[in-house]
Amino acid sequence: MNTLRGGPTQPEICAVSLAKLGVRNGDIAIDIGCGTGTVSIAIAKTAGHVHAIDMRSEAIDHARRRIASAGCDNITLVEGNAVDFLKHADTIDIAFIGGSKELSVILEYLAAKHVRSIVVNAVLLETAALAITEMRRLGIFSEAIHLQVSRSHDLAGKTIFKPINPVYIISGGSR
Amino acid sequence: MNTLRGGPTQPEICAVSLAKLGVRNGDIAIDIGCGTGTVSIAIAKTAGHVHAIDMRSEAIDHARRRIASAGCDNITLVEGNAVDFLKHADTIDIAFIGGSKELSVILEYLAAKHVRSIVVNAVLLETAALAITEMRRLGIFSEAIHLQVSRSHDLAGKTIFKPINPVYIISGGSR
Amino acid sequence: MNTLRGGPTQPEICAVSLAKLGVRNGDIAIDIGCGTGTVSIAIAKTAGHVHAIDMRSEAIDHARRRIASAGCDNITLVEGNAVDFLKHADTIDIAFIGGSKELSVILEYLAAKHVRSIVVNAVLLETAALAITEMRRLGIFSEAIHLQVSRSHDLAGKTIFKPINPVYIISGGSR
Amino acid sequence: MNTLRGGPTQPEICAVSLAKLGVRNGDIAIDIGCGTGTVSIAIAKTAGHVHAIDMRSEAIDHARRRIASAGCDNITLVEGNAVDFLKHADTIDIAFIGGSKELSVILEYLAAKHVRSIVVNAVLLETAALAITEMRRLGIFSEAIHLQVSRSHDLAGKTIFKPINPVYIISGGSR
Repeated sequence: MNTLRGGPTQPEICAVSLAKLGVRNGDIAIDIGCGTGTVSIAIAKTAGHVHAIDMRSEAIDHARRRIASAGCDNITLVEGNAVDFLKHADTIDIAFIGGSKELSVILEYLAAKHVRSIVVNAVLLETAALAITEMRRLGIFSEAIHLQVSRSHDLAGKTIFKPINPVYIISGGSR
Repeated sequence: MNTLRGGPTQPEICAVSLAKLGVRNGDIAIDIGCGTGTVSIAIAKTAGHVHAIDMRSEAIDHARRRIASAGCDNITLVEGNAVDFLKHADTIDIAFIGGSKELSVILEYLAAKHVRSIVVNAVLLETAALAITEMRRLGIFSEAIHLQVSRSHDLAGKTIFKPINPVYIISGGSR
Repeated sequence: MNTLRGGPTQPEICAVSLAKLGVRNGDIAIDIGCGTGTVSIAIAKTAGHVHAIDMRSEAIDHARRRIASAGCDNITLVEGNAVDFLKHADTIDIAFIGGSKELSVILEYLAAKHVRSIVVNAVLLETAALAITEMRRLGIFSEAIHLQVSRSHDLAGKTIFKPINPVYIISGGSR
Repeated sequence: MNTLRGGPTQPEICAVSLAKLGVRNGDIAIDIGCGTGTVSIAIAKTAGHVHAIDMRSEAIDHARRRIASAGCDNITLVEGNAVDFLKHADTIDIAFIGGSKELSVILEYLAAKHVRSIVVNAVLLETAALAITEMRRLGIFSEAIHLQVSRSHDLAGKTIFKPINPVYIISGGSR
């Protein structure tokens, strides 16, 4: 999950997640478990508006600073529960889920609202399995990928590769 | 390499390569070994102009059709040798190399022209090692990553992951 | 899963599974979903006896030929249901599960029989998650690994790596 | 490389390397850059004798303790240069190379001595490329694999996978 504990979403994970999300000009987006705001800022370059939601005040504080320094004026920060937000939300075009303890309920809301494109990042095996199972059940599953990135480091002028944590990227929606 | 033999650059590889390339509005870009044109089309969304080069007439034909159907009017197709093109080229801001038999010479030209951002996709171990060694020598090496993507397939309602070929993505330039 | 459909267990997967299994001289072993018999034959080099079980008569036929050609005389082939076998089985020291539709029930039997070492090979995400969850619940979970092997192929004198399907290897037991 | 810096060879890497090595009863083996002795001890279970070579006295000390505690009496420790050892060596059946700064010269000696089976572990891209190129040139190359292992860790009762460094395992010999 895209937790503060784990730090910001890695650039390669973010790039692939954005490609799967397929953001369009003017899209209304939500970023559930926005953490440091990395993905929200990336979405906001194309989307019309992003609602970045996190339960943790420290995440909201962190994201606020990064959003300000990125100069984004189309991101609204929401400190609180994603399900509460979804209960009262109008149209949502795309949804990124970097972390949530209520994944099943959230996916049900997103399916009911006919959200066009949904991407879940999961580092936990159980979360990946749950996301796929629920999205299949709701008829909104497209694909999952397992992404393993290793980065080069210099070792006395030679090249050693050190891996970052693998992630499951699950995508779907009412496409 | 992004050869016709291998088919178009896979979307995840393309997304990460684009992120490493860091295309900016108005950039003059070259795509060496453009193959089916997938990466050129992706770059052209942000760049000012893309020169898509390939020695193989079947690649140029293939790319021409895909570029037309994508509606891009800022891509010039060049059937021929990348080194010949580079000899007479003016400013180049960014360069993507999906395939070439003259990688060392090309990298020397790109370094001499102070190309801001260079990304090489390599599926061959020897090409990856050569790209890194040459870019280190020329003082234009930033980073290499090894990217392993596996995609989900349905197996009687369950999820099996099938891997695509791993690729090395080497990046650098006069950043 | 180690199905006939998928062919024999790949040598690297087999080597790591055997290492996790930790076969000892004289061990009584079972191989559930034995398929072509590859893992049974490997276990039989150290174990006292191996019961190789598969529901599919074509698997049993295939394994019989391979076991004969390997010259193993300490493997018994069992065509039938693994749960039926476990109901009447005496001591079992180690168990390899390459495939089964009744994984939960099998794991319960293996836990009840205090099997020292259990290794499950899973290519399905759902099977991996189920194996881990059930083994945790039964107090017999040690570790899971995700194994991604790519093999070199010659491409005009250079080296391309082609991946085989990734596999989860889950291990535990009453160690 | 199997350096002390990097700690002992990981069990999965060791298991696959041993499988590629194909140790036979009575084999005379050498382990070049033996480090902590992990691979030597594994080879010694089947081989007739193992010569474990390392230039670093701290490696030899470390390996000595581990070999003693493993109760192996068929491993000779050699503190010094592998090339010097090879100059005067008689028959060698199998060779494992976990680390060396003179890989090319060593491979030439091993080819000249018709060593049946050679396995090189490389974590550096340049070492992997060099090993493959040299073994191809000497006519003793069989195969290389890229091995990526991730291990499960418990995160609040769920399962996160953390990767260990990927390794190239290059094998060949006068088979």
